[in-house]
Amino acid sequence: MNFTLNNVPERTSKPRQTGFTMAMDKGLSVREVEDFIETCGDFVDIVKLGWATSFVTPTLKEKLAVYKVAGIPTYFGGTLFEAFVIRNQFDDYRKVLDKYDMSFAEVSDGSIELAHDLKCEYVRKLSEQVTVLSEVGSKDAEKIIPPYKWIQLMQAELDAGAWKVIGEARESGNVGLFRSSGEVREGLVEEILTKIPFEKIIWEAPQKAQQVFFIKLLGANVNLGNIAPNEIIPLETIRLGLRGDTFMHFLNQK
Amino acid sequence: MNFTLNNVPERTSKPRQTGFTMAMDKGLSVREVEDFIETCGDFVDIVKLGWATSFVTPTLKEKLAVYKVAGIPTYFGGTLFEAFVIRNQFDDYRKVLDKYDMSFAEVSDGSIELAHDLKCEYVRKLSEQVTVLSEVGSKDAEKIIPPYKWIQLMQAELDAGAWKVIGEARESGNVGLFRSSGEVREGLVEEILTKIPFEKIIWEAPQKAQQVFFIKLLGANVNLGNIAPNEIIPLETIRLGLRGDTFMHFLNQK
Amino acid sequence: MNFTLNNVPERTSKPRQTGFTMAMDKGLSVREVEDFIETCGDFVDIVKLGWATSFVTPTLKEKLAVYKVAGIPTYFGGTLFEAFVIRNQFDDYRKVLDKYDMSFAEVSDGSIELAHDLKCEYVRKLSEQVTVLSEVGSKDAEKIIPPYKWIQLMQAELDAGAWKVIGEARESGNVGLFRSSGEVREGLVEEILTKIPFEKIIWEAPQKAQQVFFIKLLGANVNLGNIAPNEIIPLETIRLGLRGDTFMHFLNQK
Repeated sequence: MNFTLNNVPERTSKPRQTGFTMAMDKGLSVREVEDFIETCGDFVDIVKLGWATSFVTPTLKEKLAVYKVAGIPTYFGGTLFEAFVIRNQFDDYRKVLDKYDMSFAEVSDGSIELAHDLKCEYVRKLSEQVTVLSEVGSKDAEKIIPPYKWIQLMQAELDAGAWKVIGEARESGNVGLFRSSGEVREGLVEEILTKIPFEKIIWEAPQKAQQVFFIKLLGANVNLGNIAPNEIIPLETIRLGLRGDTFMHFLNQK
Repeated sequence: MNFTLNNVPERTSKPRQTGFTMAMDKGLSVREVEDFIETCGDFVDIVKLGWATSFVTPTLKEKLAVYKVAGIPTYFGGTLFEAFVIRNQFDDYRKVLDKYDMSFAEVSDGSIELAHDLKCEYVRKLSEQVTVLSEVGSKDAEKIIPPYKWIQLMQAELDAGAWKVIGEARESGNVGLFRSSGEVREGLVEEILTKIPFEKIIWEAPQKAQQVFFIKLLGANVNLGNIAPNEIIPLETIRLGLRGDTFMHFLNQK
Repeated sequence: MNFTLNNVPERTSKPRQTGFTMAMDKGLSVREVEDFIETCGDFVDIVKLGWATSFVTPTLKEKLAVYKVAGIPTYFGGTLFEAFVIRNQFDDYRKVLDKYDMSFAEVSDGSIELAHDLKCEYVRKLSEQVTVLSEVGSKDAEKIIPPYKWIQLMQAELDAGAWKVIGEARESGNVGLFRSSGEVREGLVEEILTKIPFEKIIWEAPQKAQQVFFIKLLGANVNLGNIAPNEIIPLETIRLGLRGDTFMHFLNQK
């Protein structure tokens, strides 16, 4: 940090199990990735190439290489996994992961119907090859999953070998963990936390008010995801109580 | 494309008459244009320098040159045309187009009152010099044009020599084709399509939900415009059924 | 300007006392700052490193140097000042300003409670060291300050040595001068203007409709702040009556 300020919350350091930030790259150029790493490299723990953007990105290999040199792991969004699965091309997906030398992958069912046993089977199989992040929640705002079910799904996916589970919100933050207005389903979040360990969950929280909610509830070192590249520096200040939204929150705790 | 996926909608290729994407550059730097071309060059068919931003852009010549080398045509937003016309400087505008070696121009009346005969006369005159895109719709949310009138205007402008007609939406997507909430005027769109050929229309659709509407209604290869540079890759995935919003749509058609 | 258009409002030139634009940098990389200066350098009078983003910016010294070479002054957002003050580290803050060779600083109380005498005392002390911008308004949407009080606070801070006073709006434009919807508190603005000279005020106005309001009310050369880097070119066109929103406004005045 550039200045010495007393009583700033202590942040975890890399490799982080908590206080973890997942950024979403939805089409940065190679040079933009370099710029992103220059300013945010210390604050980003993993980068998701959003949904199936990797399919159309012309400089995919170069981008992945730039992230790798910087020591920032990457993975393809779950929608790419689903696109292969629904076409009965799961084996092709495994080859893609090998070809691009990926060490992480996401298993999700946000856009497709997938029997949960089968989803867990995919978690198990991919865990032999890569570290698996599995995502719970639908991209369809109409499909409401009750809290007890979120817990069952998350626990089963962790038991199947998922490294962490992700709570769905999309790029926009208006499904899954959130109402269509972006408001947090607070009861859902609190109920999940009664059963699933804090450090095992990554909360997708693209909107500032959502980030503030989780940081106030769970502290500076909550795991957050789907953060836009230009919101990583702002998020870091929110975690540290150095933006208006959490400024007094951490001081009042002393 | 980077991976082999079955049953992905077929996209047209350049030079495209359908499946055409018009991006809006509202002030990119030369280096940002280079980055944009690197990631999106294959997916962008024409770039509009939004409204009269070209008037204040310090590196205008350099930017236009970078686009030209990449084979991506550019044009000045219709508001620049209107700014010259309302000042009785139309001849100056023709000289500007020559000076900057433009091969496309937009004729519009989004901010001024212009008798339609006269507008068509401008389309005719500019068509001798460049390829003309003409735009229908007001930038004023209060001015509602009924569907039969949209059709009359569009047809007359095509008859006058316009290469394609553009449906107005502004950068924000809340006028013209859309309600102030951004909701599509569906009846208007459907009525226009009964008379004006699909390939002759570029629908300005800056918001994701608007793009999804047109792609679901008219397929992967609908012509869309006013796409922000960082939304070109996302749009391409929506066209291909590789984002949640259209994921099942194309598969269900098989 | 690139073209010759008649009857375009005359803009002030640097160093500007009116027609002043303050941009907010909330985490640009060094290369992005270079790009920003290339396209917007002539239109930006001062850059604020938003709130306490300077605390976590890894390339802070390099960024400040690039702005300095371009002749664009910079300052740290008021939240950084408040973070030092609330920790009884004001002397450390003065050293930070020296260490980074800053010639401007902001005094604010948007996130903390600060007796107004004391705030003015900070304005006085810092004025010995740098040029002070002081900000009025809370970041808390619940704290409504009545118009007569805004005037008292602004006048006292100017009397204490502030170069200009800033009306609070945050990055989002939904507190202070604005309602939570972003709508302007018009009565407040008009009442302030009865007492505080036009050229002494910088209105934070991040949203386009807010910029349009102030330009229509006060002309092309109103001082505006909290403008996002990619909105500087658009703002310049609004000031010049070359975007739909103010297109007829200036012409009708002739």
